Amino acid sequence: MTIGKYKIRRGAYYDSVVLMQLQRGLTGLPGVIDAGVVMATQANCDLLAASQLLPDSISANPDDLLIVVKAEDDTFAMDALGKVDELLARRRSSGIAQDFRPHSLSAAVKQLPEANWVLISVPGRYAAGVAREALALGKHVFLYSDNVSLEDEISLKKTAREKGLLVMGPDCGTAIINGVGLGFANRVRRGPIGLVGASGTGLQLVTSEIHTLGEGVSHAVGTGGRDLKSEVGAITAHQALGLLRRDPETKVIVLISKPPSAEVATELLVAAQATRKPVVVNFIGYPVPCPGLDNLHFAGSLTDAARLATTLAEDPFVDEEELATPLVNRYVRGLFSGGTLAYAAILGLQTVLFPLYSNTPITEAQKLVDPFRSSANTIIDLGDDIFMVGRLHPMIDNDMRIRRLRQEADDPGVGLIFLDLVLGDGAHPDPASEFVPVIQEIKKKNPQLKIVMIVVGTNIDPQKLGAQSNRLREAGAVIFPNVDSAVDFIVRQMRRAPVNGAVPISLDALRQPLAAINVGLESFYESLTLQEAQAIHVDWRPPAGGNEKLASLLARMKT
Amino acid sequence: MTIGKYKIRRGAYYDSVVLMQLQRGLTGLPGVIDAGVVMATQANCDLLAASQLLPDSISANPDDLLIVVKAEDDTFAMDALGKVDELLARRRSSGIAQDFRPHSLSAAVKQLPEANWVLISVPGRYAAGVAREALALGKHVFLYSDNVSLEDEISLKKTAREKGLLVMGPDCGTAIINGVGLGFANRVRRGPIGLVGASGTGLQLVTSEIHTLGEGVSHAVGTGGRDLKSEVGAITAHQALGLLRRDPETKVIVLISKPPSAEVATELLVAAQATRKPVVVNFIGYPVPCPGLDNLHFAGSLTDAARLATTLAEDPFVDEEELATPLVNRYVRGLFSGGTLAYAAILGLQTVLFPLYSNTPITEAQKLVDPFRSSANTIIDLGDDIFMVGRLHPMIDNDMRIRRLRQEADDPGVGLIFLDLVLGDGAHPDPASEFVPVIQEIKKKNPQLKIVMIVVGTNIDPQKLGAQSNRLREAGAVIFPNVDSAVDFIVRQMRRAPVNGAVPISLDALRQPLAAINVGLESFYESLTLQEAQAIHVDWRPPAGGNEKLASLLARMKT
Repeated sequence: MTIGKYKIRRGAYYDSVVLMQLQRGLTGLPGVIDAGVVMATQANCDLLAASQLLPDSISANPDDLLIVVKAEDDTFAMDALGKVDELLARRRSSGIAQDFRPHSLSAAVKQLPEANWVLISVPGRYAAGVAREALALGKHVFLYSDNVSLEDEISLKKTAREKGLLVMGPDCGTAIINGVGLGFANRVRRGPIGLVGASGTGLQLVTSEIHTLGEGVSHAVGTGGRDLKSEVGAITAHQALGLLRRDPETKVIVLISKPPSAEVATELLVAAQATRKPVVVNFIGYPVPCPGLDNLHFAGSLTDAARLATTLAEDPFVDEEELATPLVNRYVRGLFSGGTLAYAAILGLQTVLFPLYSNTPITEAQKLVDPFRSSANTIIDLGDDIFMVGRLHPMIDNDMRIRRLRQEADDPGVGLIFLDLVLGDGAHPDPASEFVPVIQEIKKKNPQLKIVMIVVGTNIDPQKLGAQSNRLREAGAVIFPNVDSAVDFIVRQMRRAPVNGAVPISLDALRQPLAAINVGLESFYESLTLQEAQAIHVDWRPPAGGNEKLASLLARMKT
Repeated sequence: MTIGKYKIRRGAYYDSVVLMQLQRGLTGLPGVIDAGVVMATQANCDLLAASQLLPDSISANPDDLLIVVKAEDDTFAMDALGKVDELLARRRSSGIAQDFRPHSLSAAVKQLPEANWVLISVPGRYAAGVAREALALGKHVFLYSDNVSLEDEISLKKTAREKGLLVMGPDCGTAIINGVGLGFANRVRRGPIGLVGASGTGLQLVTSEIHTLGEGVSHAVGTGGRDLKSEVGAITAHQALGLLRRDPETKVIVLISKPPSAEVATELLVAAQATRKPVVVNFIGYPVPCPGLDNLHFAGSLTDAARLATTLAEDPFVDEEELATPLVNRYVRGLFSGGTLAYAAILGLQTVLFPLYSNTPITEAQKLVDPFRSSANTIIDLGDDIFMVGRLHPMIDNDMRIRRLRQEADDPGVGLIFLDLVLGDGAHPDPASEFVPVIQEIKKKNPQLKIVMIVVGTNIDPQKLGAQSNRLREAGAVIFPNVDSAVDFIVRQMRRAPVNGAVPISLDALRQPLAAINVGLESFYESLTLQEAQAIHVDWRPPAGGNEKLASLLARMKT
């Protein structure tokens, strides 16, 4: 026969370490079978229920502390609950000694003026305030706290961008700066691979595997999981790419994230392309366009990203070519006879082209309003049902495609036209004979206009692959045998210089020995000192001891 | 000054070749500048308008033929329109000679009884009827026609499956059977690579590249673009995989398609796994789970698929292992501390597990209703915000995860539990010390239950990767260093024998010299004879000469 007893403490603030230690302390007491110590949220009560620890009827709010004890009898249970204050007091002694603990960030800065980073792991509702203070003091922020609002995240990151500072997070689990791990981080060799990740354990897995493969890490910048959402616009990831681009220690860059929004993905890949360093991309769960485009290498998994980065680090080719190309700000138009080829072209080109429209779009946003009129960058599948009523397939009858080709060539906004030509049995017996005169005519009118063609076929096809390709090439088209190589060519024509609205972050952020102020979880401070980084821990308490009513009263009195 | 004239022929049927030839004939006449010959659909009128060929005000229906001529003057225009009948009559002479042309499928079968295939490229509204007739005659069908309804596709494919016959299509552009290309196909070397593709030009590109890389193709089976939609359930793709599995000539299989629905993808990948031959998968635009799982190889593009297949063909390892494994029909439960690791695990496991649920799902359908209770296969991210209020991260505090681990282990439906353990600074100083006793306890109670763990870390982490892994391994867990290898292990435990509702297709379909009856585009018949395949062309006319009212009247009189 077991007995359960509980105690509620209303509206008091305790940090999570204290709660864990109290629970462990209670479980270790004589006669106690199990114990639970939680903030009384619905989720936490559900968890207690799953362990048969939830009292039958309690009335507690999410900001109340609920302490439950299951014991062998009533006396053991009451004794245990009686020890709560004693157990809470015992906690202090376990910490690493620090002579004098400042109570505020500004006091901490006076004590450790060389601190260039502030680590924040206080509860979410207080975190934005502390981060704002850190930015005002000119410090970079590692924001571990979760449950920070999206609005706060956006405003913090915009402020940071204006000041040339980084905000990693909120909900940023991991970073490695100048050899020192922040938050959760694995010990890894220093080396030429720099990482940007909207994913904490993703960064941990990849950095660990890079180390295991014998390579090393220059820096790993976390961004927080929401950074690549369209509302935030990947502010931190863009800053981090800019830093690693300029960092001479970083030879290869790895970019990892859960699937970003389409526009953010394109902007980020354009920025990655502009680094002119090899960039390994793994947007986990996002379709891979093809193994490689220009300096971008698309990995098939986190482990594949580590492997690729390690291979590239052996011989990191840095391309110093001019970034601004004549095709930037001109449109690409694709006129395809093969549906799958069109689809693969969209998949590849959306890497760097935005907006991109099609009559056979991959995403809803790419849907072309009028299939008879191209808009911005457009890929048309002319074998689509709508074009096919009473008409031969464009692989047999070139008439419709040639008319459209003239139409696109007459558009002064167009810089490149992309076509496929599929040979083989069943197809037109000599498509070059019909395309050559039109291409010559177009190139004569506008020699700047690039015409790129994929010619699909074999040397034993009736039309002869080599002969068809040669005649088209002589007419002025650039010929490729498949979508990957043609898209790679086009992507290289589209290199853009990085957009520069942001105040550049000083490379000192990476070069100076890491020194940090820690606000929140003491264990993060302990990790820093174990890694022999300079650090100071702030003995932070929430305003008014966590009493929110009192806190808002105090805040009002201040203003 | 140019002049435009037009002519409308109401409700008459002409095949697309006739229309193309008429247009070319008109354009070649003296004084004619341009001409358009189209069925008067909205899309076709828009196309005429784009070429400045659409008359100002016409009243034509989609099944009317619209003939437009733009000429230098009125006389030239009238003369041209006056030649329409003559030009239509001229067409016949161009065809390849065939002594006697049957007018029906059944007559053609009498003339070429060894025909095992029927190629159908008549207009969409007639195609299903012809296909039904072909199936009734016991023939495999290559259905090129588009604009066939989804209902007709499903009913045709179900009928075929019951009869052990294949229906490739509708809207199937390409196939290569026993060395002969059907529809649009490239000439390629014979060899050990068999393909299944819901994508015509995809098959053309990959077969062409395989040829160019020096390898060859056993067979390439097209399915039509809608086969992998959930309504159709990939009937043809499953039949094709079954055929290539049993075909001794095929050593490596390539499976390509635009992104299929999630359930269809899983079922198809399970069938691909069951072939026990190396299968290269490229669901274009579908996220790659990782480069390889069991015998499945995920390609990053069509070109990458060709390259991979060619590499695998050099040494095609055929795995004769037992298919039915003890874990089939038991559930997998994953309890993760790392959000990205959980996400990557879902991405990998959804390859073969359906349904699969999570509190951090990839698709809406994977959303777990109650995060505190697992259902079927479930992956939980215990670092999710909902679990985190007033609680330390599960990488520091193992309590919640260990409670949940016991809960899952007590579920008799569970066959495997999947955990991650992330080491490094900031994380628990010795997680093995807390997990080892629970694992021992679980393995003692239920030795059949597999516990699979990813341990992320390095040899210089404070907890020491090797030591942690060894202790967990000795307790009975199976240890892996990353998601890819752990998921690969689990996927191998889940091998299922192929589902066998279908009547197996005789391998004769692939082995017998291809002989075909062609109904529709004459050029496909010409291609067959050029490839020296036995073929016969049916001089097909639509019922009642294309007059739909009359046709439906005749149909009603028949019944």
